[in-house]
Amino acid sequence: MIYFNCDYNEGAHPKVMEMLLNTNMEQTCGYGEDMYCEKARKLIKQKCNNQDVDVHFVVGGTMANITAISAALRPYQGIICSDMGHIHTHETGSIEALGYKILNVQTDDGKLTAKQINNICKMHYQDVNYEHTVQPKMVYISNPTEVGTIYTKNELDQLYCVCREYDLYLYMDGARLGYGLCAKNSDLDLGTIASFCDVFYIGGTKQGALFGEALVISNQSLKKDFRYILKQKGGLLAKGRLLGIQFIALFENDLYFQLAQHANRMALMIKEACMQNDIPLLYDSYTNQQFPVIPNRKIHKINGKYEYILWESVDQKQTAIRICTSWATEEENVNKLIKDLYYL
Amino acid sequence: MIYFNCDYNEGAHPKVMEMLLNTNMEQTCGYGEDMYCEKARKLIKQKCNNQDVDVHFVVGGTMANITAISAALRPYQGIICSDMGHIHTHETGSIEALGYKILNVQTDDGKLTAKQINNICKMHYQDVNYEHTVQPKMVYISNPTEVGTIYTKNELDQLYCVCREYDLYLYMDGARLGYGLCAKNSDLDLGTIASFCDVFYIGGTKQGALFGEALVISNQSLKKDFRYILKQKGGLLAKGRLLGIQFIALFENDLYFQLAQHANRMALMIKEACMQNDIPLLYDSYTNQQFPVIPNRKIHKINGKYEYILWESVDQKQTAIRICTSWATEEENVNKLIKDLYYL
Amino acid sequence: MIYFNCDYNEGAHPKVMEMLLNTNMEQTCGYGEDMYCEKARKLIKQKCNNQDVDVHFVVGGTMANITAISAALRPYQGIICSDMGHIHTHETGSIEALGYKILNVQTDDGKLTAKQINNICKMHYQDVNYEHTVQPKMVYISNPTEVGTIYTKNELDQLYCVCREYDLYLYMDGARLGYGLCAKNSDLDLGTIASFCDVFYIGGTKQGALFGEALVISNQSLKKDFRYILKQKGGLLAKGRLLGIQFIALFENDLYFQLAQHANRMALMIKEACMQNDIPLLYDSYTNQQFPVIPNRKIHKINGKYEYILWESVDQKQTAIRICTSWATEEENVNKLIKDLYYL
Amino acid sequence: MIYFNCDYNEGAHPKVMEMLLNTNMEQTCGYGEDMYCEKARKLIKQKCNNQDVDVHFVVGGTMANITAISAALRPYQGIICSDMGHIHTHETGSIEALGYKILNVQTDDGKLTAKQINNICKMHYQDVNYEHTVQPKMVYISNPTEVGTIYTKNELDQLYCVCREYDLYLYMDGARLGYGLCAKNSDLDLGTIASFCDVFYIGGTKQGALFGEALVISNQSLKKDFRYILKQKGGLLAKGRLLGIQFIALFENDLYFQLAQHANRMALMIKEACMQNDIPLLYDSYTNQQFPVIPNRKIHKINGKYEYILWESVDQKQTAIRICTSWATEEENVNKLIKDLYYL
Repeated sequence: MIYFNCDYNEGAHPKVMEMLLNTNMEQTCGYGEDMYCEKARKLIKQKCNNQDVDVHFVVGGTMANITAISAALRPYQGIICSDMGHIHTHETGSIEALGYKILNVQTDDGKLTAKQINNICKMHYQDVNYEHTVQPKMVYISNPTEVGTIYTKNELDQLYCVCREYDLYLYMDGARLGYGLCAKNSDLDLGTIASFCDVFYIGGTKQGALFGEALVISNQSLKKDFRYILKQKGGLLAKGRLLGIQFIALFENDLYFQLAQHANRMALMIKEACMQNDIPLLYDSYTNQQFPVIPNRKIHKINGKYEYILWESVDQKQTAIRICTSWATEEENVNKLIKDLYYL
Repeated sequence: MIYFNCDYNEGAHPKVMEMLLNTNMEQTCGYGEDMYCEKARKLIKQKCNNQDVDVHFVVGGTMANITAISAALRPYQGIICSDMGHIHTHETGSIEALGYKILNVQTDDGKLTAKQINNICKMHYQDVNYEHTVQPKMVYISNPTEVGTIYTKNELDQLYCVCREYDLYLYMDGARLGYGLCAKNSDLDLGTIASFCDVFYIGGTKQGALFGEALVISNQSLKKDFRYILKQKGGLLAKGRLLGIQFIALFENDLYFQLAQHANRMALMIKEACMQNDIPLLYDSYTNQQFPVIPNRKIHKINGKYEYILWESVDQKQTAIRICTSWATEEENVNKLIKDLYYL
Repeated sequence: MIYFNCDYNEGAHPKVMEMLLNTNMEQTCGYGEDMYCEKARKLIKQKCNNQDVDVHFVVGGTMANITAISAALRPYQGIICSDMGHIHTHETGSIEALGYKILNVQTDDGKLTAKQINNICKMHYQDVNYEHTVQPKMVYISNPTEVGTIYTKNELDQLYCVCREYDLYLYMDGARLGYGLCAKNSDLDLGTIASFCDVFYIGGTKQGALFGEALVISNQSLKKDFRYILKQKGGLLAKGRLLGIQFIALFENDLYFQLAQHANRMALMIKEACMQNDIPLLYDSYTNQQFPVIPNRKIHKINGKYEYILWESVDQKQTAIRICTSWATEEENVNKLIKDLYYL
Repeated sequence: MIYFNCDYNEGAHPKVMEMLLNTNMEQTCGYGEDMYCEKARKLIKQKCNNQDVDVHFVVGGTMANITAISAALRPYQGIICSDMGHIHTHETGSIEALGYKILNVQTDDGKLTAKQINNICKMHYQDVNYEHTVQPKMVYISNPTEVGTIYTKNELDQLYCVCREYDLYLYMDGARLGYGLCAKNSDLDLGTIASFCDVFYIGGTKQGALFGEALVISNQSLKKDFRYILKQKGGLLAKGRLLGIQFIALFENDLYFQLAQHANRMALMIKEACMQNDIPLLYDSYTNQQFPVIPNRKIHKINGKYEYILWESVDQKQTAIRICTSWATEEENVNKLIKDLYYL
């Protein structure tokens, strides 16, 4: 069985494992206050053009979302989010469990527009009884989105502007940020993101780390007391250095980006094969997730050989599936899949 | 200025005030354990065909919703609700503040169907990773809905059945329940509602009381420890008897239903006037809320004279408004409005 | 049976009822934005020496506490509170239900001292891992306390200073504030309280109103968006004017203070009778609650005749009871009790 | 510098690292549903005498506490806990953040007694207005406690009985459970704990794992839907196998217990040295934490050479410190410390 079902089937990139092993018996203090975390923070800050950001490490994406949002919102405030947003669809109501309403917006491709945000805020403040409705205070975007699409610099700029207008925080979920930044249609980099977003995270779990995400906070008011929130939510790893070490491995020699480029290249090989075979793609993704639409009567041909995800039923005759590549995907396996796609 | 903007512009029906005054200097114990509350509970139970229900009194509708839902849900469970549902639109995220996600369903007329609920539940349990999504556990309906429509006995029966199938609680928000029960197209009564719903409330605030709603719990598992929840949420009135006394006044001689009938009659006069004048109605309501669609260029004719609510912009040329009648609406004022509608 | 068990056995002072009745059929807008609430706010503001305070009305004390504290704290912050504090002992964990820890302090007489608060804060910030513990951010005091004692101006000043030092909010629960302000050993007034406290409430329920408390916010940062919180927690009364009208009745001609003085006078008659009869008093209260310590073998002599509360077992032979007077207590009944105390 | 300040200064035992490395490039499914987790569950179940328990793996202790308690309590219920309990003192109010009150009990040695629990419950249910106070529903104990003491089988049996009497859940925080079970004064084993506790966790982070704790649920009603809670709180590790692999390494050949025995032996060497030198011990611990009481004027002699924790000021002249050993403590370093203790 060849796994294309997700981007966290393997452990970590060998370089990451090596550094964990080499430092294993060292004694350090806990909770991310060791010199490895310190060094990793510096590396990430450098990549953010040395802007004045705070960097915190957490084990997983849900925890990153929980703590970032918890730091930002008052009890009566809500977060604007696409209908495909991970916090809305696949985190078992973790944000509502904190007490916050998600203000949901329908999208075609998982991307929010400045106009949509503007509409929500305008409607809110125009309401005579506006205090009877949740106050929009944060915008949640994923980049790449849950369907592989990405924001351009211009689009992010517009989101930034509407957020300034209505005093909203802009938060980017970067579970697959590397794959997004290395997409051939991307014009973003970490520095730009740090300028436009109040807080975002750089995903490690799906991009070469054993586990771990780096939360980057650029807005001063979100930095204050953040470690209290980390501890309270169970997000402060006792042996915090494990996270620092991994991010050093990933960022010291741009390994993070090299791995992302590999995954994207594998994904584009599949994308092109689909296009050549008149297999429609549900979303126009240039990142590591591809969504071929397969005739139901032919789908058995790839079953048993490949793991993938049934994404959605497009119509009565066709189903979109999700194919994921990752830093660990072997070109040989991609070629096998491509060959099988030819015969669909 | 004549007020048609809501159904709580006045104080209470004179009969209610009279009973409050007559008992004012009596000494009773607090927190709803006095004999007035006891008597009011019995009266309501009788109206529910003497089914084995618990009755609790609270000051307002949001508190009724907060306590009922809080009694029912575990932290990872959610509540299915129409996109027009009051808890979704106009309670400042009170349910999310308790930690619960609202599973929102688009509706044309504010009414949920058994099929919609079935779809949500089927999708949830078919998901391979279903624990990554919120578990549907309760269905929230309003009767009448926020747009004046009502459920038939048959529709409620179907909701009941799908709730049994998926082990969901059925909750009816009855902020305007009397207006609903007395609608000429209604075939429901309190006994039937107590049979089909696990919990519901009988609204007093909008139907003749100074304030107050009566929560009726028929499901055994929701009854347990309910007073703890009431106290914790700030819903246990110190002088609880004030609520009992009011519900005695309303239910002793069916005053509650007489007042509702009056309001509905006033509303239907307006509805018929609209129909005769080719003024479209956004929703086909036979209860105390009516939604005439008025050409924008003519709307100034009723401004300054009547208070109403701008409901929604139907298109660039027309706007739906909401007209509310109540137990206190004077026929004379309705006739004035009707006359003015003729000249629109 | 004569009730001395609490201070909310009756309805409202006749003057309050009269004003409710006189305004009953008027039409006003809802949610506390009517002219009665406006007028009541002005009256209260005047009593606060016209300081720049916001005034909000809620139905009960638990709701006042819930909303005031909710407005002040971030999720990782806590509230310093006496072990006798009402929010700690008798609100079913309402504050914890909001997500906040109560930092409990043992007291002899229900009163917190500046030194105790200083100790807690110093210890917190001295801790190397201070983010592993809850950050103190608010101080909750009751005045009078739950055992009838009161703060002096000097004590309140000291609390104010320590709160400034550690950037804490000072909150006074004034469920019985009038009884406190009118105590013969009190040197406080509403203006002073508004200067020293960031937020406090003036209790109506136990002091002549049918129900209702007036929250007074003097700290600018707590004022913002307060009505959102009120609505979310179920604390925004639909017919808000009912609260405004009652507070007009109470504050227009200082009725509030006259009623408190009466209650205190009744209580002091009982206190003096105890002292003359060598009946110890558990707390040295000059307000409407008195705590005589009664030999267990004699307590039957007042049972069946008076309602009171068993406060605590002092030792194996004696029990402290709580006797409450109120605005409605009749001197005749106090005299009966005093006579019976003589024969204990 | 030699670290005795905590038991998580190093990474993981080499055997753990080896297994992580050997399995690193394997592809498995996520979220703990892989065969490694399955195998680890079986091993732990066997150690629990094959009782019908569910085993879930989480990254850290706070998350174990959050999810276990969240599974057990309704919003108005509380958890009885020693004043030294970790959830009360050092998790930044994580339990209150879930909405639950901690019912705090003063203890001399960190251990709760059945009698204390009985008193709390009796008082609660005897209260006339018991619904005004939080309902006790769970008992939290740590074994070993935060000060190194342990429960005997008899004591645990008594706790079990009082919990059955009042329908309470018994929860054991086992962050250092191995150190407790291997203490020379312990007569407990995992099977007994699984019989007496409704839920407990076996700590890995402080006992040889890189990170990770194994939650063991024996009460049927706590098992239901537990994975929803894990996911919602951010506790479901994407590459869940990392936890399974580590627990296989620890439990396959009783490595877990061998490591604990080593740590305890190191600690007892220090304990005996103290006793021989008339250095008092604040608590009578036979586990890996020791609390020598050091004269303030001599404490400088060990500073700069050893890391330890200042536990508390015993009086004006003496301070108790905490010395931690672990699976990784080298005997050579213990001997150095002992030598220095001689000269105190």
